[in-house]
Amino acid sequence: MSDIVKQVLFSENVRLGEDETSVIILDQTQLPNRTVYLTLRTRQEMYDAIRLLRVRGAPAIGICAAYCLYALARQWNHRDGPFFQVLHENKVFLNASRPTAVNLSWALERMEKLAISRSDRPIREVLALMGQECRRIHAEDIEMCKAISEYGLSLLKDGDGILTHCNAGPLATSRYGTALGPILLGREKGMDFHVYADETRPLLQGARLTAWELQKAGVDVTLICDNMASIVMRNGWVQACFVGCDRVAANGDVANKIGTSGVAILAKHYGIPFYVLGPTSTIDLRCPDGDHIPIELRDSAELREMWYSEPMAPKGVDCYNPAFDVTDHDLISGIVTEKGVCRAPYTESLAALFA
Amino acid sequence: MSDIVKQVLFSENVRLGEDETSVIILDQTQLPNRTVYLTLRTRQEMYDAIRLLRVRGAPAIGICAAYCLYALARQWNHRDGPFFQVLHENKVFLNASRPTAVNLSWALERMEKLAISRSDRPIREVLALMGQECRRIHAEDIEMCKAISEYGLSLLKDGDGILTHCNAGPLATSRYGTALGPILLGREKGMDFHVYADETRPLLQGARLTAWELQKAGVDVTLICDNMASIVMRNGWVQACFVGCDRVAANGDVANKIGTSGVAILAKHYGIPFYVLGPTSTIDLRCPDGDHIPIELRDSAELREMWYSEPMAPKGVDCYNPAFDVTDHDLISGIVTEKGVCRAPYTESLAALFA
Repeated sequence: MSDIVKQVLFSENVRLGEDETSVIILDQTQLPNRTVYLTLRTRQEMYDAIRLLRVRGAPAIGICAAYCLYALARQWNHRDGPFFQVLHENKVFLNASRPTAVNLSWALERMEKLAISRSDRPIREVLALMGQECRRIHAEDIEMCKAISEYGLSLLKDGDGILTHCNAGPLATSRYGTALGPILLGREKGMDFHVYADETRPLLQGARLTAWELQKAGVDVTLICDNMASIVMRNGWVQACFVGCDRVAANGDVANKIGTSGVAILAKHYGIPFYVLGPTSTIDLRCPDGDHIPIELRDSAELREMWYSEPMAPKGVDCYNPAFDVTDHDLISGIVTEKGVCRAPYTESLAALFA
Repeated sequence: MSDIVKQVLFSENVRLGEDETSVIILDQTQLPNRTVYLTLRTRQEMYDAIRLLRVRGAPAIGICAAYCLYALARQWNHRDGPFFQVLHENKVFLNASRPTAVNLSWALERMEKLAISRSDRPIREVLALMGQECRRIHAEDIEMCKAISEYGLSLLKDGDGILTHCNAGPLATSRYGTALGPILLGREKGMDFHVYADETRPLLQGARLTAWELQKAGVDVTLICDNMASIVMRNGWVQACFVGCDRVAANGDVANKIGTSGVAILAKHYGIPFYVLGPTSTIDLRCPDGDHIPIELRDSAELREMWYSEPMAPKGVDCYNPAFDVTDHDLISGIVTEKGVCRAPYTESLAALFA
C-alpha cells in the first residue's frame, strides 16, 4: 500500500480470512463513528453484507463476491451435494444480493467459469486455482485503480475544485479508488485540490465515507448536501466533476448512485466537464443502453427512519427510493478506464477497449 | 378556514395570544412527530423562534414578525425608554433573525411606518392601530394565498404530476399556501394530482412538513430525496414544478430554499415548466438581481449532527451550508402572484405589478 492509502485504510477493506473459509470486511455502515471488521462465514452473512451495504462500491463488491464464492467452496463437503452444483447455487444466491453493479455478476461468473474449465481435475486442485483467481481479481483491481488514477490525474491541474457524488475511493474499490484515485494520487505528488463531497442521501456515503477518506488523506474537503451542488458550481468553485460507476452500457450511458444524473445535468448547464471513472469490468457491452440497466429499488425506511433518532416523515407516507439513476452518454465528457480515457462516440470508443 | 385547510391545520399556525402581549405559533421543528404550540413572550423568544425555524416560510415569518412587534409594543412601559425608540429597537432586533426572506423586513417596516405616521396621537391609539395592522397583514396574506392558488391552478390539469421543493403550504404561509395552494384548491374541487416532495436537506421541510400537509389533505404524495428529482423527471412523472420564494429581484431572479436552482435546471433539461409562487410582498424591486440577495449561511451541525442518533460525518469536517440559492430568471416559466402570472421579460412584468 502507498503511504496515502495507508493513511486512509489501516488494512485492506476486503480480504480473505486466514483459514480461507471466511472473508473479512471493514463494515462501511459503521463509519465514520466506528472502525469494525466483520468476519463473514455463512452464505447468508455474505449475502446480507452486500445487500445491507456493509461492503459496497462496484469494484469492492466484485472482489468481495469472488472471495466469498471461494471461501464457500472451501467449506464444501460431500453431504452438501455435488461440488459444482453447490458452487453454482452459491453463485446464484450471492448474485441476487444486488442487481445494478455488473462487477458482482462479472466476478462470480469469472470464478465459476474457471472452476468449470477444470472440472476434470481433483477438487483440491480446482480450489487452489479458485484461490489464485480471486486474489488475481483483487490484484488486477489494484492495478486498474492505479492506472485509472493516472489517467484521471491527467485531466486535472493543481488547485482545481472537484465535485464528487457518493463514494468511489479506497473503501469502494481497492487502494486508490476510481473517482477519488486521481485526487489521492495528485495529493501524493504534492498537488492541492479542493473537493466538494455531496453527502449522497439516503445512505450518506459522501458524508460518512468520502469525507472520512479525504480527511484522513489530508485532502481539503467540504461536505455539502446534494441540493447544494448547483450553488457551489454557480459560485465558480468547481472545475471538474468526478464520479464512479456501477454499470456502463455499450452506448456510454452510465448507471451510478442515485443523483449522479442530476450532477451531470448541472455540470452541463454550468459548462463544467463531467467524468466517469471505473475499471473495464464495469462496462457491459451486452447492455445496449441505460434503459436496459436494472435499477435497484430499496426500502422506504432508508428515507424515513434510518440514521435518525425518530422518524423524519409522517407515518405511512409513500416513498420512492431508487438506489441508482442513469446518466445519458451525451452528458459525459469522458469515461476514464485503466486503458485510457474514452470519448464520444462511446459506442465506438468503448467497443475498442475490448477489441 | 376551508375544510381542506382545516384538515391540515387544526388552528392557525401563527396567531396573537388572547391578551395580545404574546404570539402563539405551531412549532414546525417538532413536526411530524409532535404538534406543539409555543407562546412567545419575550423579544429573545421571538427572535429564536424565527432563527431556529420554529416558524418558517417567508409569508409566515412576515405575519409572525408583525404580531411580535405589536405584542412587544403592548408590553411597553415608561421605564423601558421612549415608546418609538423601543419600537425601533425591537424592529431592528427581530429583523436580524434571518436575512434572506424580504417579507420579514417588509412586515416590520410596514408596522413601524404606520406607528410613526400616528406619532402625534396617544400611545393607546397607536397600539390599537398596530393591532389592526398586523391582523390586516395576516388577512391580506390569506386573500393573497387564495388568489395565488387560483392563478396557479389555471396552470395545471387534472392528473398532473407536480414536483415541489421545501415547503410552501399552509404552515409556511396562511391557509392555502403558495406552491401547495393550487394543489389543495384543486383537491377541494375534486381534482387529482400526484405530488413528488423533495425531502429538502438539511432541515427536511419536504419530508417533515410538505409530506405531512399533503397526507392530511388527502393528496397523493410521494417523498423522494433531493437527488432523485432527476430520475423522477426522466421517468416522465412530472408535468410541472411548483416552488415558493423568499425574495424575488427586479429582474426575476429568485432566492428560495437551497436546491431550488438545481430543480429549475433539471426542469429545463427535461422540458418541464418551472413556476415560482409567492405574494407580491416577496418581490423586492429595490434589489436589481440575484447577486444582490444576501444568502444566509447556517451552522455545520445541521449537516453533520442534527436529527441523527449519532454524527453522520467525520468530526471537524468542513461544511458549506447556505440556506438558499438563486434561480436565474431565464430558468423560470412564470412567477405566480396574487395579481396574476408574470412572464418574461420579468423586469417589465414585475414592475407592472406595482405601477
